[in-house]
Amino acid sequence: MPITVKALQKTGPDEQFRVAQIERRDPRPDDVVIDIKAAGICHSDIHTIRNEWGEAHFPLTVGHEIAGVVSAVGSAVTDFAVGDRVGVGCMVDSCGTCESCVAGQEQDCLNGNVGTYNSTDVDGTITQGGYAEKVVVDRRFVCRIPDGLDFDVAAPLLCAGITTYAPLARWGAGEKVAGRAKKVAVLGLGGLGHMGVQIAAAMGADVTVLSRSRKKEQLALDLGAGRMLATSEDGFFEAHRGEFDLILNTISADIPVDSYLRLLAPHGVMAVVGLPPAPQTLGFGSLIGGGKVLAGSNIGGIAETQEMLDFCAEHGIAAQIETVGIDEVDAAYDRVVAGEVYFRVVIDTATFEGAEPVAV
Amino acid sequence: MPITVKALQKTGPDEQFRVAQIERRDPRPDDVVIDIKAAGICHSDIHTIRNEWGEAHFPLTVGHEIAGVVSAVGSAVTDFAVGDRVGVGCMVDSCGTCESCVAGQEQDCLNGNVGTYNSTDVDGTITQGGYAEKVVVDRRFVCRIPDGLDFDVAAPLLCAGITTYAPLARWGAGEKVAGRAKKVAVLGLGGLGHMGVQIAAAMGADVTVLSRSRKKEQLALDLGAGRMLATSEDGFFEAHRGEFDLILNTISADIPVDSYLRLLAPHGVMAVVGLPPAPQTLGFGSLIGGGKVLAGSNIGGIAETQEMLDFCAEHGIAAQIETVGIDEVDAAYDRVVAGEVYFRVVIDTATFEGAEPVAV
Repeated sequence: MPITVKALQKTGPDEQFRVAQIERRDPRPDDVVIDIKAAGICHSDIHTIRNEWGEAHFPLTVGHEIAGVVSAVGSAVTDFAVGDRVGVGCMVDSCGTCESCVAGQEQDCLNGNVGTYNSTDVDGTITQGGYAEKVVVDRRFVCRIPDGLDFDVAAPLLCAGITTYAPLARWGAGEKVAGRAKKVAVLGLGGLGHMGVQIAAAMGADVTVLSRSRKKEQLALDLGAGRMLATSEDGFFEAHRGEFDLILNTISADIPVDSYLRLLAPHGVMAVVGLPPAPQTLGFGSLIGGGKVLAGSNIGGIAETQEMLDFCAEHGIAAQIETVGIDEVDAAYDRVVAGEVYFRVVIDTATFEGAEPVAV
Repeated sequence: MPITVKALQKTGPDEQFRVAQIERRDPRPDDVVIDIKAAGICHSDIHTIRNEWGEAHFPLTVGHEIAGVVSAVGSAVTDFAVGDRVGVGCMVDSCGTCESCVAGQEQDCLNGNVGTYNSTDVDGTITQGGYAEKVVVDRRFVCRIPDGLDFDVAAPLLCAGITTYAPLARWGAGEKVAGRAKKVAVLGLGGLGHMGVQIAAAMGADVTVLSRSRKKEQLALDLGAGRMLATSEDGFFEAHRGEFDLILNTISADIPVDSYLRLLAPHGVMAVVGLPPAPQTLGFGSLIGGGKVLAGSNIGGIAETQEMLDFCAEHGIAAQIETVGIDEVDAAYDRVVAGEVYFRVVIDTATFEGAEPVAV
C-alpha cells in the first residue's frame, strides 16, 4: 500500500511552495523507507523547479540532499535495518548492469540513471524529492551516515560533498608531488566550494581559495585554506602563473579558461563541476603546453559517496549550514540565488509537524 | 675547436634551401657528436622556417627528427661510445633540476628547455637543427636507436612517435576496460596519426581511424586499425555516441569539440596534440556529463622517448616514409603542406656528399 506523506510542492515555476500530500510507493523487496530528518537546498533544486533547466513536471517536490532514519525495509533487504542513520543523494536507481554501473559509476549509467526528483522512475512515475517527511528508495542507492555526523550537516554532503570529493579524489588532491603537498585551488566559495576546501585540506593538500574578491577570506581560512586570492586584482593571472597542481572550479559563470589553465603547473588539472549556461572559449595550446588537463566531474558513484561520508566523519568535516522551517523555503531560495547564504540551507523536516496540507 | 659541417639553410621565410657551412660547438665534456644519417621533415619545421609561428632567426637550419651514429664523445660521457646508433628529438637541453625535469618531463622544464633549432642555447647562440651532416648534443638529450630500426624510419619517431606515444601511454590506451580492449579513435591520418594508429594497436587497443573521408581506409587498416570512419557522413556523431574510451586528436584544424566529446564513453579522454590556430568552443556540460577529460600533450620526456623507441623496435613499428635528397626538400615541403605525403618525408643526409656549400 502506498505511503502518504507531507511534502513541499510547487505547482508551477513561479508558484510558492505549499504543503501537499504525496504518495510514496509501497516498498518493494529491495526498498528502504526513510523518515527524513533534514533536506538540503541545492542550487539545482532551484534551477529545476524554476524551469531554468528545461521543463519541470509539476506538481513537483525537489531535494536530493536527504538525511534520515530507516523506518521500514523491504523483504529482501538485509544490509539496512529500522533505526539505521542513512542518506540519499542525487540518484535513486540505475540499470546496475552496464559498464558504468559495474564500475561503481552509477551517475554515468549507460541506460540513464533515475534522478531523485523530476525523473521518470522505472515504473513510469515522476520521482519526487526530499523536501518531505519520508522517501522510499532502492537499497542500492542508500548510504550510511556515520554516527559522528548530525543529519542537518550531513544532508548537503550527499550532493555538495560528493560533487567536490569525487574530482579531488580522482585527480589526487592528497598525493604528494616531489615530496610536497599538492597545491590545490578551489575557485568559488559557495555551497560546493566550502565543501571542496574542507575536503582538499583534509586530504592533505595546500589549499588556496580563488574568488573575485577577498570578502570571504576569514571564512576560507576557517575552512582550512592556507590563503585566499582575489582573481579581480591587477596582474593576478601573471603573478600566479604555473602555481597550482589542481584547480577545482565550482562556479557556474563564464571564466577565461586559458587564463586559468596558465595558473596550472605542468600536467596540472582543472576539474570543473560548475556549469556555465554558455559555451566557453579555449585555445588548445593552453592544454598542449605543459600537458594540462581540463576534466569534468558529475557528482560521484554510490560506493564513493559512502567513502566520502566516512571520510568526512573521520576528519570532522561537515557542511556549514543554516536550518530553516518549511515555511521559510521560498525566502531561502531568494537568498541562495543572491549569494547570501554561508554556505548551505537545510530544511528541518520536523517542521512538517502540524502543517496542514492543501486539499487535492 | 668548433666543427664545420654542411647543412641545409634558409636565409629568409620565402627563400629556397641552400647548402651552407655551419659550425657545431667544440664538444663539451658531456657532449655527444653525431654523424647524422637521416633527418625527418616535421610540419613544425615548415611552420617555423616560413615564419608562421612568429619570427625565426635567420639564417636557420631546422629538423628535430634526427638519427645517426656517434662519431665522438666528450670526456665525461660514459654512456655513449663511438659507433652507437642514436637519435635526437625536439629538445637539446633543459635545467635538469626543476620539478618537471626531475620527473622526467624535460619538455615542460620550468626554466624553459632548449629546442633543437631556433632556440637560444645556454651559451646564447641560436640552435641549428638536423638537416645537416653532424650535430653536437648534451648526452642527456640523446636516445639510443635499437638495432632493429633503420635510421630513416626511426628518425620520425623522435617527434611524431613520442608525440603520439606519450598521450596513448599516459591515458592507458593499452589498458583493459571491463575485460575488453580500450576503444581508441585516432583523429587524422597524417605524420602523427599514422604513428598513433600503429602504437595504439601495438599497445593492444581496438583502433578506429577518424577522418573526413575514407580515402585512406586501406592505409589505415594496413597500419593496424580495425576500421576507418568518415566524420563527414550524415549522422556520424549520433551513430557513434559514447563509443570511444580515448580519442587522440592529431589534426591542427578547428573541430566541433562538444561533438567529439559526445563520442566518448563515461570517463573517456580526448587527448589533443594538434594545435589549431584559433580558439575552440567548448560547453563545460560536455565534460561534466560522464566525467570526461580533455587533455593536451606536448611531445614527451627523454626517458619516455627511449621507452617509445624500444617499444617500436619490439613491436616492429616504424614511420612509413619516403626518402629525399637535399635538393628535393623545397619540393617536399610543398607536398607536405598539400597533404600529399603518406606519411613522412626523411632527408637522406648522405646526399650532402659532394654538394658545394655557398661561400659565406
